[in-house]
Amino acid sequence: MDSVLIDELAWTEYRRRAVDERQPVLIPLGALEQHGPHMSMNPDVVIPSAIAAAVARNVGALVAPAFAYGAKSQQKSGGGNHMCGTASLDGHTLTLALKDILKEFARHGVRRVALMNGHYENLPFVTEGTELAIQELKWGGINDFRVIIISYWDFVNQDTIQKVFPEDFTGWDVEHGGILETSLMLHLKPALVDMSLAPIQPPAKFPPYTVFPPIPEWTPESGCLSSPAAATAEKGKILFDVTVEGITGALGTEPAWQQK
Amino acid sequence: MDSVLIDELAWTEYRRRAVDERQPVLIPLGALEQHGPHMSMNPDVVIPSAIAAAVARNVGALVAPAFAYGAKSQQKSGGGNHMCGTASLDGHTLTLALKDILKEFARHGVRRVALMNGHYENLPFVTEGTELAIQELKWGGINDFRVIIISYWDFVNQDTIQKVFPEDFTGWDVEHGGILETSLMLHLKPALVDMSLAPIQPPAKFPPYTVFPPIPEWTPESGCLSSPAAATAEKGKILFDVTVEGITGALGTEPAWQQK
Amino acid sequence: MDSVLIDELAWTEYRRRAVDERQPVLIPLGALEQHGPHMSMNPDVVIPSAIAAAVARNVGALVAPAFAYGAKSQQKSGGGNHMCGTASLDGHTLTLALKDILKEFARHGVRRVALMNGHYENLPFVTEGTELAIQELKWGGINDFRVIIISYWDFVNQDTIQKVFPEDFTGWDVEHGGILETSLMLHLKPALVDMSLAPIQPPAKFPPYTVFPPIPEWTPESGCLSSPAAATAEKGKILFDVTVEGITGALGTEPAWQQK
Amino acid sequence: MDSVLIDELAWTEYRRRAVDERQPVLIPLGALEQHGPHMSMNPDVVIPSAIAAAVARNVGALVAPAFAYGAKSQQKSGGGNHMCGTASLDGHTLTLALKDILKEFARHGVRRVALMNGHYENLPFVTEGTELAIQELKWGGINDFRVIIISYWDFVNQDTIQKVFPEDFTGWDVEHGGILETSLMLHLKPALVDMSLAPIQPPAKFPPYTVFPPIPEWTPESGCLSSPAAATAEKGKILFDVTVEGITGALGTEPAWQQK
Amino acid sequence: MDSVLIDELAWTEYRRRAVDERQPVLIPLGALEQHGPHMSMNPDVVIPSAIAAAVARNVGALVAPAFAYGAKSQQKSGGGNHMCGTASLDGHTLTLALKDILKEFARHGVRRVALMNGHYENLPFVTEGTELAIQELKWGGINDFRVIIISYWDFVNQDTIQKVFPEDFTGWDVEHGGILETSLMLHLKPALVDMSLAPIQPPAKFPPYTVFPPIPEWTPESGCLSSPAAATAEKGKILFDVTVEGITGALGTEPAWQQK
Amino acid sequence: MDSVLIDELAWTEYRRRAVDERQPVLIPLGALEQHGPHMSMNPDVVIPSAIAAAVARNVGALVAPAFAYGAKSQQKSGGGNHMCGTASLDGHTLTLALKDILKEFARHGVRRVALMNGHYENLPFVTEGTELAIQELKWGGINDFRVIIISYWDFVNQDTIQKVFPEDFTGWDVEHGGILETSLMLHLKPALVDMSLAPIQPPAKFPPYTVFPPIPEWTPESGCLSSPAAATAEKGKILFDVTVEGITGALGTEPAWQQK
Repeated sequence: MDSVLIDELAWTEYRRRAVDERQPVLIPLGALEQHGPHMSMNPDVVIPSAIAAAVARNVGALVAPAFAYGAKSQQKSGGGNHMCGTASLDGHTLTLALKDILKEFARHGVRRVALMNGHYENLPFVTEGTELAIQELKWGGINDFRVIIISYWDFVNQDTIQKVFPEDFTGWDVEHGGILETSLMLHLKPALVDMSLAPIQPPAKFPPYTVFPPIPEWTPESGCLSSPAAATAEKGKILFDVTVEGITGALGTEPAWQQK
Repeated sequence: MDSVLIDELAWTEYRRRAVDERQPVLIPLGALEQHGPHMSMNPDVVIPSAIAAAVARNVGALVAPAFAYGAKSQQKSGGGNHMCGTASLDGHTLTLALKDILKEFARHGVRRVALMNGHYENLPFVTEGTELAIQELKWGGINDFRVIIISYWDFVNQDTIQKVFPEDFTGWDVEHGGILETSLMLHLKPALVDMSLAPIQPPAKFPPYTVFPPIPEWTPESGCLSSPAAATAEKGKILFDVTVEGITGALGTEPAWQQK
Repeated sequence: MDSVLIDELAWTEYRRRAVDERQPVLIPLGALEQHGPHMSMNPDVVIPSAIAAAVARNVGALVAPAFAYGAKSQQKSGGGNHMCGTASLDGHTLTLALKDILKEFARHGVRRVALMNGHYENLPFVTEGTELAIQELKWGGINDFRVIIISYWDFVNQDTIQKVFPEDFTGWDVEHGGILETSLMLHLKPALVDMSLAPIQPPAKFPPYTVFPPIPEWTPESGCLSSPAAATAEKGKILFDVTVEGITGALGTEPAWQQK
Repeated sequence: MDSVLIDELAWTEYRRRAVDERQPVLIPLGALEQHGPHMSMNPDVVIPSAIAAAVARNVGALVAPAFAYGAKSQQKSGGGNHMCGTASLDGHTLTLALKDILKEFARHGVRRVALMNGHYENLPFVTEGTELAIQELKWGGINDFRVIIISYWDFVNQDTIQKVFPEDFTGWDVEHGGILETSLMLHLKPALVDMSLAPIQPPAKFPPYTVFPPIPEWTPESGCLSSPAAATAEKGKILFDVTVEGITGALGTEPAWQQK
Repeated sequence: MDSVLIDELAWTEYRRRAVDERQPVLIPLGALEQHGPHMSMNPDVVIPSAIAAAVARNVGALVAPAFAYGAKSQQKSGGGNHMCGTASLDGHTLTLALKDILKEFARHGVRRVALMNGHYENLPFVTEGTELAIQELKWGGINDFRVIIISYWDFVNQDTIQKVFPEDFTGWDVEHGGILETSLMLHLKPALVDMSLAPIQPPAKFPPYTVFPPIPEWTPESGCLSSPAAATAEKGKILFDVTVEGITGALGTEPAWQQK
Repeated sequence: MDSVLIDELAWTEYRRRAVDERQPVLIPLGALEQHGPHMSMNPDVVIPSAIAAAVARNVGALVAPAFAYGAKSQQKSGGGNHMCGTASLDGHTLTLALKDILKEFARHGVRRVALMNGHYENLPFVTEGTELAIQELKWGGINDFRVIIISYWDFVNQDTIQKVFPEDFTGWDVEHGGILETSLMLHLKPALVDMSLAPIQPPAKFPPYTVFPPIPEWTPESGCLSSPAAATAEKGKILFDVTVEGITGALGTEPAWQQK
């Protein structure tokens, strides 16, 4: 039982690490969301879970079970919540769920949590859940609980962008089901990607506003917002390594995280 | 991509199965809960997930990502929510989360869902979420959505009980972290069980009432409510087979489930 | 004004008993639920209210107004919430109502409350309300508030079962509108029972799962889950006495309840 | 079983009256609230319950179980929610509870409900619950559900005021625990009033604003907002008769109530 | 920047006044509600905002941005929430919004807030929000936060009533869109009133109960509950001056408000 | 009364425009948020309100009262919600408020609404409110309600950026209290800006993650995330004109908006 995964530990071993050794907890936050015809619907879970596990081994942390369902997909970042297969929580439900779980880890004695987000649309709702959890923990007399919120793509540096998108980078906005996520999945779970089905298409273009109910024609028929055709496992490894390294480094130097 | 796991399918394949073929969806409902010093904290996820996958293959169904967090552990059925490691949702949060996800599958076109519950305390809250989802779906004009709620242990028949508990069966109540769950885990995930740490203890005895805040002394120090020492992988296989067979049979004969 | 009923006391007298004498408070929790064609719809209120009053006289406690509406009736324990006459709260509403009222008694200075439950389906939702109330009271600096949750049928011992069900006892599950409740009502409120209308029927049989929306045919046409035909006022008296005695004894010996 | 009280009827009899005969339902809405040192804390339940029962007999209606707990007492109408003995629900809880129960009666087939309010502070929250219930019922296709909201004191006419308050009437505002309620209780439940303890005091005077947290000194020490010393059972009978007659008449002529 | 309006101040200046000088904060609470064919829909915002600004200058206070939307209009006080133009919040939403904002001012260091209400129906919901905010602030260790709730019409004294309604005063109940509000608007925002469109009509008469869904015919076709034809700017000035003076005086003498 | 502002119209005139002429409604969404020592705390209200009014005149639309309070300020986009002066709603409160108001306009007969957002952090919560409102409107049988969500800065094109930021543009992220907002305020409300207090500072730099509770030192002492020193009223006019023109054009060509 030398796993970093909390759910794979007996509670006595978890207690030893979380309470006695004061190890922090990383929580991967994902979604069940369509990512094109060539790839499974779980990259938003698989990628931050793998990154979290690697970071946890680097920094001596524990990884909580991932949130498998996330906030509603938005058309310009995830194709939209009208898509078949995408299954989302109401924003408030996600806020409450995160709040509840953060309070539970605090009850155990954990004082440092990092949210490892893999689904763009989760961010405001888990931020809200974090703020509400901290408020309630203070009401309960716990004043030293700290949360770091991380989206792994924010650790892909300019160098890596040039390696991964040698031609031109059209922006994170349209990377849904594109080269970034597909490469990472080819590296992490090749069996869940079938490049023969990767759509070849121009990046999606959207007007500078959104419309509700969503206009289905705005989303490319594939569900991808840009073509994943140039994705490779090698690019995935580069991306994985740079984000793991970046997050490991950030946690190692951030003073708020260093105080136990 | 011949997986039964929805999150491992591309959305186009999911759509083919769920919408065109009208395959039903099974949702495993678990918890992150201490289960003794000899076993990981995920049996309530692992066991119904494995049963769901086997049943899905038998009946031609799909399996949704499991709910990894559940309702608050109760002292007389799970050791209590004061235990370290156990991390639970508020009941209302769980109700909302299930309601949201049921509505999403219905939006896709799914009309039959089976909840595969692995955590006793989930039942009333997911039942409530089911009733609320059906109400809202009716408001939206969907009147033929059906949900079957299953707790796998209800399919362990008398015969099996005699095989698995040859000496005497002290009741499901105290089977938390005991022979039932440990045997199933030894069958399904032996690496997550260390029988050398299995506590030897009499079954927990509780008064005919509950007290809040919980009285820690009521829960055996191990967190198990009975001794798992007699658990074996063979018993796990027997239990697994009988529940898979029972649930497969039930779904195959229940008229409410048969209408597509 | 020597009543044990809080609502029948002037507030000054209530204050004397609850605050000066530190008397505990018992809250009967019922439901408005069909209980067959031979009996009124209030046994889940009448029975725990009568038991609470008797226990209160025995132990020197007060009885709060009963909750007249409860959680949704379930088909396998109460006939189901599709039945005409049954009128239920959403689970979360019940949780909030109990939370609010517990906090109010704590505000007055009460530190010990016993919930006297008469409706099986209430349990998880009032347990949740109890846990949330205790959390909020702690936020407000009240750390010594204790709640005991009691379902009266858990105090019917083996001896009594043999007296009341001499032929065979088919389990509490199907006792809805059966011998237990009907006998108690014959003892407590004979005018609300008409034995000439008592249905004669075999105990209800249910599959080991539940289906939503409920399948009306699963519930016996009478609404009773077993025949009350063998109910008598004498059996009612036996049941009443044994539960009152049992609960009185339990409160008298439970250390958590003894500390004032 | 010729009771008008729903909870005293078997469901089959309730169904006959509510569904076949289309009888309307009256719901008494009360509170557990201090009403002075001379009187029990249940006048807000007892009075509208008695009026409802009398009106129901007059118009052929049914009476649902009373709401025994109400919205927070306000200092200028009920002494305030800081008083010992007063035990109130959050406003939203009351709104939800009423919404739930109205929807249940509508599910049975009831189309006309009258709320018989006995606690001033309930009004806005039960009005809100009524509006939300009607909205949800419309979502469910029920468009002909009507609710009449009645506070019994609005049926005390000028004539009666002169009889009951021959000297001078200082307004409903300060009638909390005063002549009106005490007289009605002396008529309906004389055992719950002890006139020897009735405080003699001038009517409470309040500034034209409210302050939170409440300033305890604003509330007369007795908890009454005016002196009940002039209350008599005879006045209670006059008040009871005039309100029962007035409400009976109103329901008999209001067109919205007459359509079945 | 010598404004009393918080939103017109830089945060540094706000901090100086609110924190260093301990100035209290006044929050105008309005609604978007029809007020007849002769007047804009914002009197419930304009009037308390103007009064708040004048009072703030008198007592050395700050004025927060007004709540532009309020609780649901009721038929007998505002024409009803079925009217075109009226746009209201659910009661609970208003409660939460006020709770949130009160907590924010408390976070800054403000300890005295006065709610300046201009919409009758807001009162119970903002009172509830106030009580909940104070509860949560206490949980957070802030015990000296005080709120005064003011409806400006409660400061119109008998003298003024005789000046403004020389013939006869039919009561505040039917003053919706009548002489009171129209006169104040003629004084404060004459461009938003067109007296040529002022309806001439008798005061609305309502039965002593309410009906839901509202019966449109109960509300006069104009939306006013009494005729504003006798409104004048002069009366508006009298009303404005007397309320400003009254509120200024009240705040100046109320001990709860005086302690900084 | 030729105003475009709904609250300045009589309901009869509003009805003529909104219902008879089918004019759409624009809702400005702002915040009360510190924007540096040189500027008032209302730019997030003032700017979208002014843009909305201009667009409304161009396209024949109405403008609803602005939301004066918004979602919690985030450190990397608004300085953070720990800042004095900033007063925010919980995300869920904002979601509910927007949902309520959208439903009200739909009840009147409005079928097209544009949200004119001025506070970055509002977006996900008002998007959620929009999605929930559309869901409930569908439950109520309204299927043709459309909402466009606009953040004005998304209409500042490359050309304008070069004019306004001739040296270099450091990104919208750090434009809080910077040249963009300050220039617009100088154009729209010069009295609310005091350039003599404009801080001179480098753009704020943040790590690629966020920390809660916020680390006050991350936010520049001024509260601005970049220096507004180069702001001018002329730049403000350019920005105002280009966004008004852009939004006017977008509404004029978006097919979803054109269908009445």
